[in-house]
Amino acid sequence: MARLQRVTIVGLGLIGGSLGLALTRARAAREIVGLSRHRATGRHAVRRGAIDRGTTDPDRAVADADIVVLATPVSTIVHLAKRLAPLMPRGAIITDVGSAKGAIVQALERSLPAGISFVGAHPLAGSEQQGLAAAHRDLFHDSCCIVTRTRRTDHRALHMVSRMWEQVGACVCVMAPARHDHLLAQVSHLPHALAFCLAQAVTPAARRVAPRSFLEMTRIANSDAALWRDILLTNRPALLKAMRAFEHEWATLTRLIRQRDAHALEQFLRHAQRLHQSFSN
Amino acid sequence: MARLQRVTIVGLGLIGGSLGLALTRARAAREIVGLSRHRATGRHAVRRGAIDRGTTDPDRAVADADIVVLATPVSTIVHLAKRLAPLMPRGAIITDVGSAKGAIVQALERSLPAGISFVGAHPLAGSEQQGLAAAHRDLFHDSCCIVTRTRRTDHRALHMVSRMWEQVGACVCVMAPARHDHLLAQVSHLPHALAFCLAQAVTPAARRVAPRSFLEMTRIANSDAALWRDILLTNRPALLKAMRAFEHEWATLTRLIRQRDAHALEQFLRHAQRLHQSFSN
Repeated sequence: MARLQRVTIVGLGLIGGSLGLALTRARAAREIVGLSRHRATGRHAVRRGAIDRGTTDPDRAVADADIVVLATPVSTIVHLAKRLAPLMPRGAIITDVGSAKGAIVQALERSLPAGISFVGAHPLAGSEQQGLAAAHRDLFHDSCCIVTRTRRTDHRALHMVSRMWEQVGACVCVMAPARHDHLLAQVSHLPHALAFCLAQAVTPAARRVAPRSFLEMTRIANSDAALWRDILLTNRPALLKAMRAFEHEWATLTRLIRQRDAHALEQFLRHAQRLHQSFSN
Repeated sequence: MARLQRVTIVGLGLIGGSLGLALTRARAAREIVGLSRHRATGRHAVRRGAIDRGTTDPDRAVADADIVVLATPVSTIVHLAKRLAPLMPRGAIITDVGSAKGAIVQALERSLPAGISFVGAHPLAGSEQQGLAAAHRDLFHDSCCIVTRTRRTDHRALHMVSRMWEQVGACVCVMAPARHDHLLAQVSHLPHALAFCLAQAVTPAARRVAPRSFLEMTRIANSDAALWRDILLTNRPALLKAMRAFEHEWATLTRLIRQRDAHALEQFLRHAQRLHQSFSN
């Protein structure tokens, strides 16, 4: 497959910046262009070697792009894609990195102009840190990137987006958007919901004696509030389902503790331990 | 204060073994004796330099001890203390390392023979790893050790137990047993309860795409099931109270997501973030 001519990254935060750094190292494109709201961000990204050229002008950013990667918050993706698509050359591809896929893919597959393909993607990498300053070229190394496929997905576009993520070290998993949302609700959005609540459920005096495990369990409560508001609301149906699954286990545990059922409680904890071991290996 | 003559450690697992290694390095006692059920454990602990002498005979273990440290599971402490106290010299001290304090302190302050003092302690160090093999001499370095005081606590005994933990690098916090249980229910037992449930609330397919944050949040689900059964049941009243505080936050979050209340949801997440930052600094 030919080398990409031009990749445009929209949004130069942790994910966009890290993708630029990783693509640059992989020599995956002739030119990497960054589109940001503020000129200073583009200059910073050029200095860090994340992009070759920065601009704040959408037209100049995407006019000759093969792939435009929207690395902006979930709530901005549909609007941005619709705004940029008419400026792009026929045959070009739009993709994203959003943590919820069903709503975004559905909205865009129906509304982009002919000749512009959309492929949803979600690299499962990141951290509670934000911004270009935290970006690094190994962020996707050995990570998993989910790329979505529907009946409307263009095969060439799917292949090119998958290839791009493979070039930066990710292992690509292709699945339907609804399946992505169902899985991520369980292993990402639900844990965030728990961390947000745990951080608020303890008194200041208790926090002062908090062991390492508590800090570890609330680390992701430090995630960006506006970003996570959007993720939780965008993936609302799948998240509520995952929350109910958790509540079912919680109700069981509460009952066993209330009833002092030592035998069943030990079985419950042993089952959790076995499951943990099965997925950490 | 004079150097201790003899410290006896009962139970040579992660905590007992690490305490022996740390006391040895600090030259805190003339002799460190280990009491274990199996002879091989004592031999292993001597080889690792955690104790000077191992025995399986309770009488020989505690006959000349200044301090006997019960580093065994929560459910065994009261029984062991009552069994060993009559074998100990007048003026000797029994202490423990259990994760629940109210029930243990109450039971022992009333029932030990005259001349034997009990002081409850709980070093807030440890890991989901278990056993002597995981022990290391820096386990308590820069950690917090809670030592309990009641109206019946002997001042000299409190001082000697506190001094022992300071010598292995811990910062000692003295508080009432009920306060310990209230604080630890929030920052240790509640997070464990959440991790045990989260580990069981997700499907095998979701586990296969679990990001680092999920593994981090379920790490403590790998804790020893029998040990945690006892901790959760022994600290039952304080734990149920902490669980209710969590459920209150969970109900709020669920309502905000259900009602799609973006503004209040962002405030909720922002508050969690601020709290997290306040306790991780």
